[in-house]
Amino acid sequence: MIFDRMVGEEEGLKLLFKEKAVEILMTIYYENLDGKNVYIQYIASRINSPHSYVWLMVKKFEQAGLVETIIEGRTKIIKLTEKGIRVSQRIQEIIEEFIE
Amino acid sequence: MIFDRMVGEEEGLKLLFKEKAVEILMTIYYENLDGKNVYIQYIASRINSPHSYVWLMVKKFEQAGLVETIIEGRTKIIKLTEKGIRVSQRIQEIIEEFIE
Repeated sequence: MIFDRMVGEEEGLKLLFKEKAVEILMTIYYENLDGKNVYIQYIASRINSPHSYVWLMVKKFEQAGLVETIIEGRTKIIKLTEKGIRVSQRIQEIIEEFIE
Repeated sequence: MIFDRMVGEEEGLKLLFKEKAVEILMTIYYENLDGKNVYIQYIASRINSPHSYVWLMVKKFEQAGLVETIIEGRTKIIKLTEKGIRVSQRIQEIIEEFIE
């Protein structure tokens, strides 16, 4: 999604980043910026990936200190940690280097 | 190299970045910071990868506007562009999030 909507020099981003992982992280970042709650199912549909894959990646992000999850009834709300926000901001700056 | 010398949370970096590509870029960045000329053979030995692989990656970085190469006799000197420096600085900041 993030990578697909770019033209021309987006190849530079693909050289450096693992696309799906960054798409998941940045989907959370953009939604959190808008003050919205983020759910695994939402991310899965946004990036066109299986729920199980997104669930696994979110778990890894949690282990890496980038996100935290809050159980709400039968679903999980995913939020970036302070560290997750800082990392996402730096990635956003790198993305802007390639799309400007 | 960059990733290997980290402990604990380095997994977070491996989640997001293509390791070898980032190691090549950051090797150029660190050497340029020290005011040194960087050659493909030097990078290959530093990151323990074949000369042919590093050569290919440097070519892709050049296409992405991250590096420029200067022919000097029979060798190539590799230098980061302004864009390459900015991208490397952001990556360095992300690395620091994971090693502190």
